[in-house]
Amino acid sequence: MFQTITIVGVGLIGGSIGLAVRRRGLAREVRGLEQPGADIEQAVKRGAIDRGFYDPRAALRDADLVIFCTYPHLIPCLARDYAPLCSAGCIFTDVGSAKSDIVEGIEGNLPVGISFVGSHPLAGSEKSGVEHADADLFNDHLTVVTRTDKTNAAALEKTCAFWQALGSRTKVMDPADHDRALALTSHLPHLVAAALVNILPPEFAEFTATGFRDCTRIASGHPQLWMGIFLDNRNALLDALDRFEERLRFFRGALNDEFGSPVFGFLAHAKEVRDALGN
Amino acid sequence: MFQTITIVGVGLIGGSIGLAVRRRGLAREVRGLEQPGADIEQAVKRGAIDRGFYDPRAALRDADLVIFCTYPHLIPCLARDYAPLCSAGCIFTDVGSAKSDIVEGIEGNLPVGISFVGSHPLAGSEKSGVEHADADLFNDHLTVVTRTDKTNAAALEKTCAFWQALGSRTKVMDPADHDRALALTSHLPHLVAAALVNILPPEFAEFTATGFRDCTRIASGHPQLWMGIFLDNRNALLDALDRFEERLRFFRGALNDEFGSPVFGFLAHAKEVRDALGN
Repeated sequence: MFQTITIVGVGLIGGSIGLAVRRRGLAREVRGLEQPGADIEQAVKRGAIDRGFYDPRAALRDADLVIFCTYPHLIPCLARDYAPLCSAGCIFTDVGSAKSDIVEGIEGNLPVGISFVGSHPLAGSEKSGVEHADADLFNDHLTVVTRTDKTNAAALEKTCAFWQALGSRTKVMDPADHDRALALTSHLPHLVAAALVNILPPEFAEFTATGFRDCTRIASGHPQLWMGIFLDNRNALLDALDRFEERLRFFRGALNDEFGSPVFGFLAHAKEVRDALGN
Repeated sequence: MFQTITIVGVGLIGGSIGLAVRRRGLAREVRGLEQPGADIEQAVKRGAIDRGFYDPRAALRDADLVIFCTYPHLIPCLARDYAPLCSAGCIFTDVGSAKSDIVEGIEGNLPVGISFVGSHPLAGSEKSGVEHADADLFNDHLTVVTRTDKTNAAALEKTCAFWQALGSRTKVMDPADHDRALALTSHLPHLVAAALVNILPPEFAEFTATGFRDCTRIASGHPQLWMGIFLDNRNALLDALDRFEERLRFFRGALNDEFGSPVFGFLAHAKEVRDALGN
């Protein structure tokens, strides 16, 4: 499918992409690029990449697909810096959880011949690091691929085909639509889980059971990564928070209703919707 | 340990108690009592009880332990109604998730010779019904057992020994302290999960992944049961909601801080606390 794929940032997601590409034979060579000081050899030992690099020039030479898996706020800057080091025909994509800032920061700002298509595989874990990478991470998961009026159609098609080859379903979307959806399905839940944990007095830890642990597991996510996501998607997250706080106010009123029936409707609707999502 | 245990309401929790008691040989006979119209035979087939009853008089005759596993708001009323049908020395306990109302409604209101001790095993599932009962449900989980100045010391000791025999750790607590803790570790998380689900537009369901599903799984809980818990523990839940909303306001301010650093502290503290809880 590709000659050379370079993964920039070989952590949980980058490492999982590398494992999946190598297992499925989708590239002749998988390269990893890390910042100086990071342990790129661990990714080689893990089997996630064929070769590790600290030098972008060497890592990107003749690559035909470059996948940015770093902190989201670094992606536009790195993409613009790295593009002149790449050959014409090279496709850039990324895995950032908030797409508008990344897509706006890159599309239209690359040299002729280098295309960018935003991606977001809706798969992950509260864990981080290549040691938790998993070749099946994208299997049966959805990957959103972004399209704007600046997106190169051939690169879009190839990017979709790539994720499908990793076992993922794909959906092409406008970046802002993606960000509004993910604010409600991922970013707000993360914020809420963190807030639940932050108000737990230490002496109450022994009273947490499966419900609390399931509900707050995502709060173990990487703080720096999630700070980047929240700042990138600030406006959509604040809109989602508005809606959430409105529901809490409704509940407060319902709980003070002398008949209690609005509480039942609140819970019954939630059960119906949640049951339909499956496990 | 007991001659005859009667379980009032043989659903997920009542059924799991029955399975565990029978497997561990803690009683000569385990009886189930259901309201007319309920399928008590299913509990017999499942092996959760030896015999099923619709008639309280027959179910309670000579029982030495009666465990109320019904909707929490029914427990005080049923306990007072059933006590005259029981023999002196009989112990009543329950499994309700909010303890103050139940304990206040029963202690001091039973005939001489019948003791009540409140219990709350911190184990469960978003599922309900005896078909999901599990003999190991209480294994390695905490069970809170309540003590007030009216609690019979011998009955308290026997109730603790019973839960320990089911594999549970036990902790003796004042009902109000229990309710304040559970508001934060169970009731507020349930409310929050339901609110997250309730603001999810149907067209965004396809963007939910593991994080959202883990975080909201509890919203599939039984609406009537949870309405009862919320109404029983209204004051502690509203206090917990106050603290939670205060944290959301803090976050909103942090997200608007131009340096973004309060967001990092918010997330880093959450990760530290959540990591310490384990999986």
